[in-house]
Amino acid sequence: MADKADRMKARLPRGFVDRHAADIRAVDAMTARIREVYELYGFEPVEQPMVEYTDALGKFLPDQDRPNEGVFSFQDDDEQWLSLRYDLTAPLARFVAENFDQLPKPYRSYRQGWVFRNEKPGPGRFRQFMQFDADIVGTPGVAADAEMAMMMADTLEAVGIKRGDYVIRVNNRKVLDGVLEAIGLGGEENASRRLNVLRAIDKLDKFGPEGVRLLLGKGRLDESGDFTKGAGLDDTAIDAVLDYIETGKVAGNEGVDELEQIRALCAAAGYDDGRVKIDPSVVRGLEYYTGPVYEAELLFEVPNEKGEIVRFGSVAGGGRYDGLVSRFRGEPVPATGFSIGVSRLTAALKNLGKLDASDVVAPVVVLVMDKDAEALGRYQKMVASLRQAGIRAEMYLGGSGMKAQMKYADRRGSPCVVIQGGDELEKGEVQIKDLVAGAKAAEAITDNTEWRESRPAQFSVPVSELVEAVRKVLADQAAERDQ
Amino acid sequence: MADKADRMKARLPRGFVDRHAADIRAVDAMTARIREVYELYGFEPVEQPMVEYTDALGKFLPDQDRPNEGVFSFQDDDEQWLSLRYDLTAPLARFVAENFDQLPKPYRSYRQGWVFRNEKPGPGRFRQFMQFDADIVGTPGVAADAEMAMMMADTLEAVGIKRGDYVIRVNNRKVLDGVLEAIGLGGEENASRRLNVLRAIDKLDKFGPEGVRLLLGKGRLDESGDFTKGAGLDDTAIDAVLDYIETGKVAGNEGVDELEQIRALCAAAGYDDGRVKIDPSVVRGLEYYTGPVYEAELLFEVPNEKGEIVRFGSVAGGGRYDGLVSRFRGEPVPATGFSIGVSRLTAALKNLGKLDASDVVAPVVVLVMDKDAEALGRYQKMVASLRQAGIRAEMYLGGSGMKAQMKYADRRGSPCVVIQGGDELEKGEVQIKDLVAGAKAAEAITDNTEWRESRPAQFSVPVSELVEAVRKVLADQAAERDQ
Repeated sequence: MADKADRMKARLPRGFVDRHAADIRAVDAMTARIREVYELYGFEPVEQPMVEYTDALGKFLPDQDRPNEGVFSFQDDDEQWLSLRYDLTAPLARFVAENFDQLPKPYRSYRQGWVFRNEKPGPGRFRQFMQFDADIVGTPGVAADAEMAMMMADTLEAVGIKRGDYVIRVNNRKVLDGVLEAIGLGGEENASRRLNVLRAIDKLDKFGPEGVRLLLGKGRLDESGDFTKGAGLDDTAIDAVLDYIETGKVAGNEGVDELEQIRALCAAAGYDDGRVKIDPSVVRGLEYYTGPVYEAELLFEVPNEKGEIVRFGSVAGGGRYDGLVSRFRGEPVPATGFSIGVSRLTAALKNLGKLDASDVVAPVVVLVMDKDAEALGRYQKMVASLRQAGIRAEMYLGGSGMKAQMKYADRRGSPCVVIQGGDELEKGEVQIKDLVAGAKAAEAITDNTEWRESRPAQFSVPVSELVEAVRKVLADQAAERDQ
Repeated sequence: MADKADRMKARLPRGFVDRHAADIRAVDAMTARIREVYELYGFEPVEQPMVEYTDALGKFLPDQDRPNEGVFSFQDDDEQWLSLRYDLTAPLARFVAENFDQLPKPYRSYRQGWVFRNEKPGPGRFRQFMQFDADIVGTPGVAADAEMAMMMADTLEAVGIKRGDYVIRVNNRKVLDGVLEAIGLGGEENASRRLNVLRAIDKLDKFGPEGVRLLLGKGRLDESGDFTKGAGLDDTAIDAVLDYIETGKVAGNEGVDELEQIRALCAAAGYDDGRVKIDPSVVRGLEYYTGPVYEAELLFEVPNEKGEIVRFGSVAGGGRYDGLVSRFRGEPVPATGFSIGVSRLTAALKNLGKLDASDVVAPVVVLVMDKDAEALGRYQKMVASLRQAGIRAEMYLGGSGMKAQMKYADRRGSPCVVIQGGDELEKGEVQIKDLVAGAKAAEAITDNTEWRESRPAQFSVPVSELVEAVRKVLADQAAERDQ
């Protein structure tokens, strides 16, 4: 044990969190359902490691103006820079480029994994978080984008979100690019100004058209007094952008035709019933998108941090990134894909009461009444027989007495405990104490003496009937829960 | 697309690998079975993030003489050092210390996750790899260690390793420490010499008693001419150590009593049938162990890199680490746990033919014969109906003709393709081509004309019967595989 002076403080770095049983089980159940949908659509799992060469990741991080800001990086012993991946798309692009000839094309793949952002953490904003992506690489046809939008819809329904409670909104960067070109923001030299305009439009949900107008112009002062510098457009340009966002109309543009094709394909498969919609306000914050972009938005309302009732909002998004793979190759490699924010979606499902892990029953605890090796051996045998019957069970391994053991079982949420002291041993019996029934009886009985005498929900059986008796207690409790 | 000069090379950093579908599926199936065993034993999932404060991880990495060598580290913006975890034990210790009062004690938990080692990669030695750990924190009793050894045995059998093909070997660091003290290596000042002796003993499997004798003495020259410096013991000391390893005998020692208790508990539960054995040569390379140590060894033989037939060897190991949590706290917090090397165990199971993922059927491909929006809509509807029936299916999304589409289906390993051109459309039909039967027929028929005329395993059905017909093809293929 550590002296007070030497003692290290046990603490997590900012923006990193531990995951507890309920969360792990909920995410596992949810991602299993997501995986089923992706598999049905013909996607195969493939995973990249968490570390890549920094230059292979590129400079595509959203909301970062300096290259590689926002990324955790370190030098290898040969002095090359390595980084933790900040998304699953850039590593996939590297993978496809590296294994191009071995892959079937178009290449459908999916992956679930942790990504890292070296930025200021905030409420619901972590420095390590999980994404679940699906991508199709190697086809320029917007049929792939249409399929992605439809798969998003199917995925949301598979995890338990009702039709009508979500919408997949689709737009096309090419259309937006046309508008931006028309207002004089075309060309490589205007890339960063274009990105500022995109980010302003992306805030439509949050700040409304008037807020976007400010962000497109000189800037916006929020309620807390923070000023966000604007994109610096003049009024004519701002009107043109806002007009497009409202009407979706723009003169002759390849992107408009693509959107029409996506709409038609989704309609043919019946997804035009409100599941998939064309929406000119969707832009996505990432710079690498080159064509259709899509976003899954949940429509039901929840209270935000300020207690206001707002839409839950976006839980997944993606788009076409025709440039990412071809950075590595001498030929164009078109690609499209999307990413589910696993924590966001988990939070949404919790809100809807869809992630109930109560079917996981805590272990039965066999209490330690005697501590000699012979007794421990007997208790060990009991847990072994329960486990063989598929019942979670454990022998109490602490050093403490009866009271502490009961407290432990209570803390674990155990369904029952098994007790064999000297008296029971002599009779060849064990006592089983049903903790759920016991708690209920204790609530009903106010008199302490009465409680002790009634010994509620506690009974003895021959040792040979232990497994059967425990099974019956579990079945009774399950039936009661189902009511 | 990139100019040749600008083009970036797509490559992975040394020691990191991509994971393909077969490996991901195999590991998922295996870890699901491991999880079931841990749950049965009453363990709960809990996970720590991949990044921790460097000082919280401690200096416990095996085979590293300088502190924190072997770890990937980087500075946070407040200048504090962060590291990627190198195992799952040190982060768990931090977690338990940080949440001590909220946890039931003894605290049983398990976790699966990636760990990172900043060291020279080699064959089967990666810089990112997966571990699957289980730990009990908060009990000094060796009943916990006995349970760990038994759970290891149950886990190996659950993943498919036959009884007799493995052994869980158990030893106690306290016994070893007694021997080392007897030869004058007690005390803090001899810590690094003790570690050298432990590492020498750990090589018994690899080099035999004579090799260990050299490593305990002046050093050992291997066949390739590399010299490993020895621990520098004199002959008397070496004899004492080797005598202990062979006989397991040592004068009056607390550790010997503990081992006897573990043996008795395992015997009571019936694990003394060769599943769990006391073995004085087990040491484990980690410095932080303080009591019982245990190791799961696979006994069946495989060829090594040199083509020699050797035992498969260790796939999991662990022990008691009573000091790790108490570094953070003003009280002793005893703990014991073990770690499965997921890649090693996966490799072992592959060797035994236990990780067959052939029950995952590749998607049915609906070929694109016409490319107008109306036709694409029809194909999209077909895949949607197949998916609704639970059949993996996709529309071909590439831009290419019939030949490329058939090649794609072949590369995916598709069970069949669905074809609807103008003729079929007119008749309200689709053609289904069974690719498995087709390949067999093609093998049997040598004459090309004959092949084309027989159109093996290709037939037409009304569009309304598409799902039923595909289902029958899949069922026939499954029945054939089962034969």
